Amino acid sequence: MKCAIISVGTELLMGQIVDTNAAWLSERLRSLGIDVFYRYTVGDNPERLADTIRTAFDHVDLVISIGGLGPTEDDLTKETFCDVLGVPLVRDERTVQDLESNAKISQKVFTDNNYKQAMLPEGAVIFYNYTGTAPGFAKEVDGKIFICMPGPPRELSSIWENGAEDYLKGLGDGEVYYHVIRLFGKGESVIETDLIDLIDAQTDPTIATYAKEGECTVRVASKHKDPEEAKRKVDEMTEIICDRERDFVYSTDDEPLVMLVGRKLLEKGLSISCCESCTGGMFASQLTNVPGISSVFDRGLVTYTYNAKMNELGVREETLAKYTAVSRQVADEMVTGLQAKTGCDVCVSVTGIAGPSGGTKRKPVGLVYVGCIVKGKKKVVKLNISNLGRAWIRKYATLAMFNIINKMIDGSKIPPM
Amino acid sequence: MKCAIISVGTELLMGQIVDTNAAWLSERLRSLGIDVFYRYTVGDNPERLADTIRTAFDHVDLVISIGGLGPTEDDLTKETFCDVLGVPLVRDERTVQDLESNAKISQKVFTDNNYKQAMLPEGAVIFYNYTGTAPGFAKEVDGKIFICMPGPPRELSSIWENGAEDYLKGLGDGEVYYHVIRLFGKGESVIETDLIDLIDAQTDPTIATYAKEGECTVRVASKHKDPEEAKRKVDEMTEIICDRERDFVYSTDDEPLVMLVGRKLLEKGLSISCCESCTGGMFASQLTNVPGISSVFDRGLVTYTYNAKMNELGVREETLAKYTAVSRQVADEMVTGLQAKTGCDVCVSVTGIAGPSGGTKRKPVGLVYVGCIVKGKKKVVKLNISNLGRAWIRKYATLAMFNIINKMIDGSKIPPM
Repeated sequence: MKCAIISVGTELLMGQIVDTNAAWLSERLRSLGIDVFYRYTVGDNPERLADTIRTAFDHVDLVISIGGLGPTEDDLTKETFCDVLGVPLVRDERTVQDLESNAKISQKVFTDNNYKQAMLPEGAVIFYNYTGTAPGFAKEVDGKIFICMPGPPRELSSIWENGAEDYLKGLGDGEVYYHVIRLFGKGESVIETDLIDLIDAQTDPTIATYAKEGECTVRVASKHKDPEEAKRKVDEMTEIICDRERDFVYSTDDEPLVMLVGRKLLEKGLSISCCESCTGGMFASQLTNVPGISSVFDRGLVTYTYNAKMNELGVREETLAKYTAVSRQVADEMVTGLQAKTGCDVCVSVTGIAGPSGGTKRKPVGLVYVGCIVKGKKKVVKLNISNLGRAWIRKYATLAMFNIINKMIDGSKIPPM
Repeated sequence: MKCAIISVGTELLMGQIVDTNAAWLSERLRSLGIDVFYRYTVGDNPERLADTIRTAFDHVDLVISIGGLGPTEDDLTKETFCDVLGVPLVRDERTVQDLESNAKISQKVFTDNNYKQAMLPEGAVIFYNYTGTAPGFAKEVDGKIFICMPGPPRELSSIWENGAEDYLKGLGDGEVYYHVIRLFGKGESVIETDLIDLIDAQTDPTIATYAKEGECTVRVASKHKDPEEAKRKVDEMTEIICDRERDFVYSTDDEPLVMLVGRKLLEKGLSISCCESCTGGMFASQLTNVPGISSVFDRGLVTYTYNAKMNELGVREETLAKYTAVSRQVADEMVTGLQAKTGCDVCVSVTGIAGPSGGTKRKPVGLVYVGCIVKGKKKVVKLNISNLGRAWIRKYATLAMFNIINKMIDGSKIPPM
């Protein structure tokens, strides 16, 4: 089924917030075999919204709105839909009860305005909201379906799980079976070239590559009436691609590198500590995003100055003087000192030039060294990161650290990065 | 002038990437007095794009597209615009020269395909591209204007600065003068309530509040033929608001808190070190986003375990046993130990419960203590952060640390956060 999404909100249109909801919903719809053909963004203005609803239904039979279901006078999405399609709004008693009991629990003042949220299209399929106040719903009128979802991302995803997904499954042309292969260390265009024969010949499964902040992703997908057939084809192609890109693939299930490494450390009970120079705490910060990591993460040191490197890690003054802070030798002494200090199973160090200044001809911005010890085995890896700005270099270096740890835990070869 | 934006790209429609360009451009257009009334997203499909261009021009006289200017067969934005509006494409010799010399410099193979990028609408105003290959342009046809801009964010902003902004300035209804007031420590709804009389009475200047990841922003704007008049009104209202929210405002020029603190440290030559538990390196990581910070940032310690807190910072075992790691006493001993170790002008510590587990009735998830010493003066601040998830708590706690440092550097009162 062809679908259009309407994002409603003046703050979106003005650019005050970025619309992450629409991308999130598009991706989910796609996995159900529902293709999004158009996306519209309109402000909290009933005439322009009505106009957009009409335009959307001129092209597709399924229109999903996000936002504009709140209790204030600005929030007019469902009223406008009902107006355009001639559907009356009726009071939903379960929503009234939910609203009243929520208000009691959170000791908030309950105004008449709030009852507005309990007015829903007659005969709609209601998706109750367990994380907020406005329910979502689906309503069919003469073969056309409109679905309204709330705008706060947590409520949107909760309603998706509590009814909307199941409802929409019935409308898709068969579920899409897919793998998302994640790779690190090769650019999107290089991977595309590697796989160009497969991509050019693709009909089923489809193969799409895209880049995401230093990582690259290949999506292999198939849609069949027979789900077994889809699975067989996708698994086969996934294997072919993984085979070609063996050194670079780290997940076939779209698991981010940080989460993957965190999971492995926890599963294997490996303790970890880190010391960072150019990434300035980004590695520790990302690692500690993993819930439960405190049971294996011992400590992190951000040793920015020469002094800090010497005092905290025992890097020798001569080494710094002879080779400078950004050198294989200093990365080595940093990780060696860290290991001596913390005794962790996994120790990692990083030093590099993030820019914008500080680069020289021999040591340009983007030069980074990563030292890593896993269960007594040590490696120091040199990275030449493209100078796409300070933020990029720091992010890429951080991912490279996770990648090196992952390879060393697995005991596999570390490819050039 | 009323405007519509069309974002072109199948990867946007499929949700593979989030459209940050459209928000970025909307905000800039607004500052020129150009109101965005509609935003459309379409895939790389000429029929649907043509259809969307027609729909857009039914409503507005200025349509700006982003994306689809590349050299491949998929890229059809300008061809489709020219088709719909009956404008021929002609070869632009300067672009040809630019493309050829770029290819020479980067030693890339130059294919016939690349010349496609040099075909531009006859009589268009061209915005040359200094960071990529595809130029942007503006073309007027019978009172309707279409503007095409490239999709890569760096190219978009470079073209904005190198011609597009100047061109568009002439189309706006006078430039908008504005202040963006940034506040920390009060939610958007509370601030809205504080300012409700001003907001309700607003006509000129306009006042808009919005929330952005723990911070809150108030935008005060005015558009006048006489720019002096706009400035006077906006400055006056900004002063009134700053006066009411004195304890919470930290910038009237939209400067992020991290950058503001970084700038103050550099200007005053104050050295800084930090030790973090629950934020896990996020403070250090954000501080080291500030270019040049290495001249004042000494080191950061992520002391996750009891051991690390004792070894690195000299926190006493009895203190940990008696009060637990998340306590005023431990935050105090952490920052005291850090100051003894590093001797920095500014020292900051943080310990808290980021969740999802680890909370108790007496010490719930979201309880955080921040210790801070600035030039010998010490404070320990208790935060009760709403439990909106681990990521939120870590982010909010990090911002709170910057906020406390900012207040203590200024010698001003620290309000409850």
